[in-house]
Amino acid sequence: MAYKILNYPRVRDYCNDIFQNYGFSEEESRTITNVLLMADLYGIESHGIQRLIRYHNAMKDGEVSVDVRPAITFETPISAVVNAKKAMGQLAGHDAMMLAIDKAKKTGIGMVAVSHSNHYGIAGYYTKLAADNDLIGICMTNTEAIMVPTFGRQAMLGTNPISVSMPADPTPFLFDAATTVVPRGKVEVYNKKEQALPTGWALDEKGLDCNNPGLVLNNIINKLGGGILPLGGSNETTSGYKGYGFGLICELFTSIMAGGATSNHAVENGHNEISHCFWAIDYGIFGNKEAIKKNFSVFLDELRNSKKAEGQERIYIHGEKELESYERKTKEGIPVNEKTFQEMQEIGRSLGVDYAGYIGEDF
Amino acid sequence: MAYKILNYPRVRDYCNDIFQNYGFSEEESRTITNVLLMADLYGIESHGIQRLIRYHNAMKDGEVSVDVRPAITFETPISAVVNAKKAMGQLAGHDAMMLAIDKAKKTGIGMVAVSHSNHYGIAGYYTKLAADNDLIGICMTNTEAIMVPTFGRQAMLGTNPISVSMPADPTPFLFDAATTVVPRGKVEVYNKKEQALPTGWALDEKGLDCNNPGLVLNNIINKLGGGILPLGGSNETTSGYKGYGFGLICELFTSIMAGGATSNHAVENGHNEISHCFWAIDYGIFGNKEAIKKNFSVFLDELRNSKKAEGQERIYIHGEKELESYERKTKEGIPVNEKTFQEMQEIGRSLGVDYAGYIGEDF
Repeated sequence: MAYKILNYPRVRDYCNDIFQNYGFSEEESRTITNVLLMADLYGIESHGIQRLIRYHNAMKDGEVSVDVRPAITFETPISAVVNAKKAMGQLAGHDAMMLAIDKAKKTGIGMVAVSHSNHYGIAGYYTKLAADNDLIGICMTNTEAIMVPTFGRQAMLGTNPISVSMPADPTPFLFDAATTVVPRGKVEVYNKKEQALPTGWALDEKGLDCNNPGLVLNNIINKLGGGILPLGGSNETTSGYKGYGFGLICELFTSIMAGGATSNHAVENGHNEISHCFWAIDYGIFGNKEAIKKNFSVFLDELRNSKKAEGQERIYIHGEKELESYERKTKEGIPVNEKTFQEMQEIGRSLGVDYAGYIGEDF
Repeated sequence: MAYKILNYPRVRDYCNDIFQNYGFSEEESRTITNVLLMADLYGIESHGIQRLIRYHNAMKDGEVSVDVRPAITFETPISAVVNAKKAMGQLAGHDAMMLAIDKAKKTGIGMVAVSHSNHYGIAGYYTKLAADNDLIGICMTNTEAIMVPTFGRQAMLGTNPISVSMPADPTPFLFDAATTVVPRGKVEVYNKKEQALPTGWALDEKGLDCNNPGLVLNNIINKLGGGILPLGGSNETTSGYKGYGFGLICELFTSIMAGGATSNHAVENGHNEISHCFWAIDYGIFGNKEAIKKNFSVFLDELRNSKKAEGQERIYIHGEKELESYERKTKEGIPVNEKTFQEMQEIGRSLGVDYAGYIGEDF
């Protein structure tokens, strides 16, 4: 696929303009844009501006409500349950993590569960908010069911990503990973390239290992059975039941604690009911923060400096690749593929936004 | 390997007798025995009575202290840090989880980090304690380093298991899994059977995929490099960096929060310094407990009843297999292999315990 590099501040301003056109305030638009473009800046294209068309359609269809504010339906000094009332997932998520951070600063911990929300972008955005406040952040979300449980052939759990962040020097630990072996986007890439899927990624409609990406995607779209495997693959040899378990833990802390729809009911009749959770932990509840952070930074350095496999030059800490990508792309620009570029133009046109002034006319 | 089925109450009484001989009180001996034999009853032989010889040697070498009581070194209403002072891991673990449960009942959550401990048996014992108290339990431990980080060739993290339990009907959800793809014990089984290891389990001393179990074990024992892979395997295709990340999260909440030794320093000069963490969460901080538990039970039922893969008859919820094994083995007995049986005899003889009265003379 062909890519064009777009100037980051201009794409940001374009998005802010678009979201204000939907009726969001300037501040809300900035938050949504920040979450959306952090994905592109981090190099996670699947969750970035290529999703703008989905949000655009959701707005048109009334799937996302612009005017609502999420409501707290249950609260204790250390916890809250929030009904997002179909708000933009990014706004519900940002507010919920800020509420968790606020509670953590007062009591040591804040745990917020959110129901009736929409897709909220990358989980890492929210845990980084906690780390930026010198707290541990934990964040999970369920999604439309796509993960087949071990020995099953029916998608029952979402990609159910889990993110954990902890401050460290020189950069925070920032883990953000689906509990499926891969996200759907990777199967789509193999399909476009007409490549066979690696074994252990997906199952066909009978629940058997399948290397045909087109068949898997068609089955998912038409709900014919099969889907993507949990981390660890299809059988007990490579411990797929562990990834299935992590997916279930994600479900427990999101939909079950929020009183929301579980992944297998999260999208029904084209209707989204996504649940998230946001935890902030002041690690000062375990002693001297400076010493704890220093010990963690030392261990991360020992990992970085440990011996490399033959042919490898670097051992990464989770979040490093993303932060380096962020530094580079805020300066050099965001790569956008041709289809996304055209969608950005169409959206601009339909809303009367001067897209050409932001991103130009030609790809 | 040949097995003999031993009567469970007799093995229990034998263990209680042994532990009291080391100087533990009757109550302490019962706790240690309960943790130890729960592994056998659950069918997790690697963590059961076959480890008795290791505890016996640790006692002789003064690696485990009998008379100490762990000390709380830092405390808040929702948290504590404990120095176990080389106590039996089972006792330090039991007390720490009971402290977390006590805090959770008062404040909604209890988070206890423990340093300077020993191997504590199966993590699931402790989270089940929380579930038995109608709370969510979370438990992690680091171990001697055996996991090689992605792109590395040096073991830097332990098997670092994570356990989560949540009450449900008819049986609790009880997840307990190493963040390595398999534990060391499985490599040992392949070695005994002279079978090639599945690709994705282990690395050789150069950090390359290795199917030779004898070579891997020899390298581990002599610290020549290589080791066991994180859940997800050796490369980015099957997302081994996710298992590596879960292992790192385990390290964060155990050694780092406890101010203890990280896995790569947990066993130095034959000296153990293991760290654990124990969290109990009263899920009533998220609303009506009965409704939450019911929703969770309904979802687990939907999972059980979802369509099976061709050739499969059952989808398991984590903990089901173990509970069924428990029911069966408390009645029918515990399978013990010949080597372990002989070790039990030797230990009994050396302590002047009438082992024959408990387990008989002949295998």
